[in-house]
Amino acid sequence: MVAALLSDLATEIIIPVCAVIGILFSLIQWALVSRVKLTPDRNGPSPNNKNGFNDSLIEEEEGVNDHNVVAKCAEIQNAISEGATSFLFTEYQYVGIFMVVFAILIFLFLGSVEGFSTKTQQCTYDVHRMCKPALATALFSTVSFLLGAITSVLSGFLGMKIATYANARTTLEARKSVGKAFIIAFRSGAVMGFLLAANGLLVLYLTINLFKLYYGDDWEGLFEAITGYGLGGSSMALFGRVGGGIYTKAADVGADLVGKVERNIPEDDPRNPAVIADNVGDNVGDIAGMGSDLFGSYAESSCAALVVASISSFGINHEFTAMCYPLLVSSIGIIVCLITTLFATDFYEIKAVKDIEPSLKNQLIISTVLMTIGIAIVSFIALPSSFTIYNFGVQKVVHNWQLFLCVCVGLWAGLIIGFVTEYYTSNAYSPVQDVADSCRTGAATNVIFGLALGYKSVIIPIFAIAISIFVSFSFAAMYGIAVAALGMLSTIATGLAIDAYGPISDNAGGIAEMAGMSHRIRERTDALDAAGNTTAAIGKGFAIGSAALVSLALFGAFVSRAGIQVVDVLTPKVFIGLIVGAMLPYWFSAMTMKSVGSAALKMVEEVRRQFNTIPGLMEGLTKPDYATCVKISTDASIKEMIPPGALVMLTPLIVGTFFGVETLSGVLAGSLVSGVQVAISASNTGGAWDNAKKYIEAGASEHARTLGPKGSEPHKAAVIGDTIGDPLKDTSGPSLNILIKLMAVESLVFAPFFAAHGGLLFKL
Amino acid sequence: MVAALLSDLATEIIIPVCAVIGILFSLIQWALVSRVKLTPDRNGPSPNNKNGFNDSLIEEEEGVNDHNVVAKCAEIQNAISEGATSFLFTEYQYVGIFMVVFAILIFLFLGSVEGFSTKTQQCTYDVHRMCKPALATALFSTVSFLLGAITSVLSGFLGMKIATYANARTTLEARKSVGKAFIIAFRSGAVMGFLLAANGLLVLYLTINLFKLYYGDDWEGLFEAITGYGLGGSSMALFGRVGGGIYTKAADVGADLVGKVERNIPEDDPRNPAVIADNVGDNVGDIAGMGSDLFGSYAESSCAALVVASISSFGINHEFTAMCYPLLVSSIGIIVCLITTLFATDFYEIKAVKDIEPSLKNQLIISTVLMTIGIAIVSFIALPSSFTIYNFGVQKVVHNWQLFLCVCVGLWAGLIIGFVTEYYTSNAYSPVQDVADSCRTGAATNVIFGLALGYKSVIIPIFAIAISIFVSFSFAAMYGIAVAALGMLSTIATGLAIDAYGPISDNAGGIAEMAGMSHRIRERTDALDAAGNTTAAIGKGFAIGSAALVSLALFGAFVSRAGIQVVDVLTPKVFIGLIVGAMLPYWFSAMTMKSVGSAALKMVEEVRRQFNTIPGLMEGLTKPDYATCVKISTDASIKEMIPPGALVMLTPLIVGTFFGVETLSGVLAGSLVSGVQVAISASNTGGAWDNAKKYIEAGASEHARTLGPKGSEPHKAAVIGDTIGDPLKDTSGPSLNILIKLMAVESLVFAPFFAAHGGLLFKL
Repeated sequence: MVAALLSDLATEIIIPVCAVIGILFSLIQWALVSRVKLTPDRNGPSPNNKNGFNDSLIEEEEGVNDHNVVAKCAEIQNAISEGATSFLFTEYQYVGIFMVVFAILIFLFLGSVEGFSTKTQQCTYDVHRMCKPALATALFSTVSFLLGAITSVLSGFLGMKIATYANARTTLEARKSVGKAFIIAFRSGAVMGFLLAANGLLVLYLTINLFKLYYGDDWEGLFEAITGYGLGGSSMALFGRVGGGIYTKAADVGADLVGKVERNIPEDDPRNPAVIADNVGDNVGDIAGMGSDLFGSYAESSCAALVVASISSFGINHEFTAMCYPLLVSSIGIIVCLITTLFATDFYEIKAVKDIEPSLKNQLIISTVLMTIGIAIVSFIALPSSFTIYNFGVQKVVHNWQLFLCVCVGLWAGLIIGFVTEYYTSNAYSPVQDVADSCRTGAATNVIFGLALGYKSVIIPIFAIAISIFVSFSFAAMYGIAVAALGMLSTIATGLAIDAYGPISDNAGGIAEMAGMSHRIRERTDALDAAGNTTAAIGKGFAIGSAALVSLALFGAFVSRAGIQVVDVLTPKVFIGLIVGAMLPYWFSAMTMKSVGSAALKMVEEVRRQFNTIPGLMEGLTKPDYATCVKISTDASIKEMIPPGALVMLTPLIVGTFFGVETLSGVLAGSLVSGVQVAISASNTGGAWDNAKKYIEAGASEHARTLGPKGSEPHKAAVIGDTIGDPLKDTSGPSLNILIKLMAVESLVFAPFFAAHGGLLFKL
Repeated sequence: MVAALLSDLATEIIIPVCAVIGILFSLIQWALVSRVKLTPDRNGPSPNNKNGFNDSLIEEEEGVNDHNVVAKCAEIQNAISEGATSFLFTEYQYVGIFMVVFAILIFLFLGSVEGFSTKTQQCTYDVHRMCKPALATALFSTVSFLLGAITSVLSGFLGMKIATYANARTTLEARKSVGKAFIIAFRSGAVMGFLLAANGLLVLYLTINLFKLYYGDDWEGLFEAITGYGLGGSSMALFGRVGGGIYTKAADVGADLVGKVERNIPEDDPRNPAVIADNVGDNVGDIAGMGSDLFGSYAESSCAALVVASISSFGINHEFTAMCYPLLVSSIGIIVCLITTLFATDFYEIKAVKDIEPSLKNQLIISTVLMTIGIAIVSFIALPSSFTIYNFGVQKVVHNWQLFLCVCVGLWAGLIIGFVTEYYTSNAYSPVQDVADSCRTGAATNVIFGLALGYKSVIIPIFAIAISIFVSFSFAAMYGIAVAALGMLSTIATGLAIDAYGPISDNAGGIAEMAGMSHRIRERTDALDAAGNTTAAIGKGFAIGSAALVSLALFGAFVSRAGIQVVDVLTPKVFIGLIVGAMLPYWFSAMTMKSVGSAALKMVEEVRRQFNTIPGLMEGLTKPDYATCVKISTDASIKEMIPPGALVMLTPLIVGTFFGVETLSGVLAGSLVSGVQVAISASNTGGAWDNAKKYIEAGASEHARTLGPKGSEPHKAAVIGDTIGDPLKDTSGPSLNILIKLMAVESLVFAPFFAAHGGLLFKL
């Protein structure tokens, strides 16, 4: 056994330095975005100083580069930003109450494990040592829970802020060229990606170092307390995803049903009263929700790895550098993503629409290839050549090259899932084209083919996940799974950048339409948006793939902490957990789908009411009442997120308390294996319908033109499919990530309580 | 330990006697149905002798009770019957080849376990005794496989024959009164139900007795060989369900898309070229397919119970009566169902439309209550007061009252599942009415609400199944689960009767429409059909509930036979099996949904072609070419059933051979817990859409009338939902029952081979 090359001091320096570099880089990107001015030039347009740039605007926009257009863009952006901020603040009020209540719960449950005793106790795993009292773990878990929750809220909020800051700027840049608009949208995405990745790392690193001041040598207790960070991150993500998901789709479905279907006006038409709510939705759902979700995954996989490491040789021998391996992987990830970003913004220029999608896809490939090298370096300098990993009661000998392979298999599985998702949801390939073709015979065949496509798209991702699990599990037990998940998430900054790029472009298109800009501008933003649709689907693929690995890692950590040796399917306690757990994603989806449906119906009524009662609205003479629609979406999503939230948060508590840890293990395994399938198929079905519609609308091929144009019967059928897909791909599907992760991390945090006092029903 | 009260001789008599009573009863029902004459009265109508009865026909039909109508009905019935027979014969040709190939495979795989040695060997469980050679088990398993397959084929075929024999007779009786029509349809269903239940029992009983001549005291080998019976039954059901399901929905969807949507002609209009194919489909899919499916469940649960019993104290001590407990439960079930049937046909008369649904529901309640008494009697006279049951390596002590509770919990869980299914699919309750209401805003909201309803409808059935599993598993391990499944299936004769009643009424309505009978006749058959829709959904609920229990029982038997002590989720081999297993229902559904879609598109083209090229077709002057449509459905379903069939049949063989029994255990558990959810939600979503449409069409309430009438926008949206639901509820959903059962029984049959030679990949 050769010790690690990297000294502990170097580790203590490298991690915060990388995090700070990430934050600085994100600020630079933000400064570059803010160079596009939204305040109209006071001296009016001048040939040599157009909006601070020297490029020429396209000719038909020359005349309108005046107060009017810029002011209008600024106004719309303000409306969107205000709507989003007001929604998030309303959401945070409720979430704040939840946070306080849940923090108290954590303290009480965990404190009660040893009857709130302040005495030190025998350690659970290393019985020859003394550990800090359970009360300390309760207290520090509560603190780390709050830190995780606040970091998650901040990540989501900042992401939303930069997105609403960038959308009008993207629109304005689209007047110059598609390449310039692309760069603004992409840089804004990068601000969010880097801020989130670096913040998450920095807060985690600081928390560990602060907690260490108290815990000293008791790493077992220290990293148990750190798991609260993951729980905090993920529970906020729950509300972000579910609340944001309901918000965005209630507005979107409602706007489409009246605007596109009944009134036959285009998407994002300013006459549609729900149009602002729709654009707000993109920011609170796809940006803030997605950000919290991926932050949660990142925090949870780090916590799962750390808690297992603390009871492995790293923790037992107090090897700090090796212990910090998960954080080092994330640190190097930030540097890798930084280099990758330069390929899109500086090394290579987008000249035409057809360059956009390859450029975004190259981001994924470049970051994956570079990261493979990065992981190799970290694995060989930060780890001893061999060590032991805790494996359900026994210590398993592992070599550093095996851990390298574990991280890599996760990283590359992510890439495969991304590309498969692209294949099934991009209209450049036959699956979506077949779905579009089925619109010839109406909406029914469109739906049948779309559902079948979603089911089919599950196959390869599941094999990719299964292979990752097999390799990492065989090499390094649950620690292997956790670092495989981290591998998939190591390029999170790039992943989030291309993911956030989508809604920003979508909003930019909306603003162009609402500001009455010319058709050519709208075409450019549409091209950006189409590429964004595919990357959004890829992002969802990553999110669900990593969620599967993360929740398995958390499940393993839970089982270790709860002191279970075997989860035997062939016992009634476990099997009923398994089958009920497999049912939960359906229950949860039923709630979220129904919520979107009901909220959309309310929106439809309001939009219809405005069209019917406000004179001159259809003619564009009067402005609709946007605020009421924003309020409907806000109220509906706040109200509707409570039942699904309660289902997720209460299930582990009820099952653990009344049925005990074996049944809970079954529930976690069941919801994991079933939820992954529902989530992937729902996301891809929705993505395919969306792009099938876009395929018909764009009419870029001979085949597509036989189905179009807009308003044709096949196109109407495609619009129906798209509307059905909205809640599937943006609400119920992605929310399931949270379901499976959150139940697992909650079980992990409460494991000592369940192990000590759980299973009341069977004890009677 | 007190010995059983019932002597072995009495058991040997009771079982075949009950089976023969069942067959005789079914022949009597058939004789009563055939009293309705399809050959026109040669002397023409006479006031005192109307079609052999003395009842008056309703006035507007008086004049047409002549050669014309009766001859036309007979002609249509012949066309349907011929189409169905020709499809089944074509299917059997392919299935025959499969049977021979698979029989050879079984013989080779099982024979190779001990290298085709003809020497007796040590028994697996009771190592102090000598058992028959593995070659004998191979040979007898092959024989019982063929017997199971042939019985299944016969059951399906006879069911189809009686259904096509009864449909026109139901139409003719509908001229007299709705009660008379109901009785004919119900009696015909009963013919099928009793024939199938009694035949299944009799063949199984005879096989056991014949095999005993060779096996003598080696019950372990005897009942291992008997498991082939379940495999045979279920593998035929695979083709029945999948092939029949694709057939019926290709025809139905195709007919609807052109007829109802494009040409705006009513359902079952004789001008629609696909109308005969549609009616044939009801018989080959809903009758023959359903029959094979439930026969498979029955055979498999009996086999699972017997194989576990053979290595428990019953088998070790050679207690024949106790050993035959599963068969005795089925025997008493036939008698109970016989009494129950009399309540519908003799003790109580249907006078009005509103009596139909309660009468059918009472069948379920009466049979469940009576059966509870029947099970109590059998449990206390056929079982010793205490005995031991094999429980994964150890013998567990069980009391007779515990086994009584195991059977009961299955029986009552079936009733609960039935009623929940009814609640979610009948338009008498709010869930379907909400779905209908959502049609106001178009097809998209209809689909969103329908999907949410299906997801939600999973909750209570899963809890019911989980509780049954927990109770029966805790009391009597895998034997408990097997008898719980048998409990659910003990009233199979009644279940099948009310289930087969549905398609018969559906066909009767079709014949009335095609024969040009009056509106009032059609209203009566529609009322029969609406009740049939709900009972069909209930039947599907039973089928999937029992499939879940059966496959868990088979899984347990497989694990016992493969010599596995623990299926630990926390091992990579098992976990990857679990997640891939949970994916299989999606893969399978993708194939079947896509098959229906593609086949329906072909049908659409043909129907359009005929409407466009045959002059006078729309005006009703010329007859369409029904035969071509029948041929398209036949060819498509035969071709399309091969890939999903291969997926189901090959998965256990590939996984067992290359990955070994642990991974295979994971696959079985994963596909079970995931497949149940997909199947229930698909069936109920489809059922709800169908009845939401019917709710709008019938316009029976104030609310319903605001949505209608036929042809209104909400109705059009409802028709789209109904069409989407067709493949979900009649193809992919019910086929999943077979997926989960068949993989389990196949694993059980091949278990000795996998245990001896499996896991090649991990051995390398």
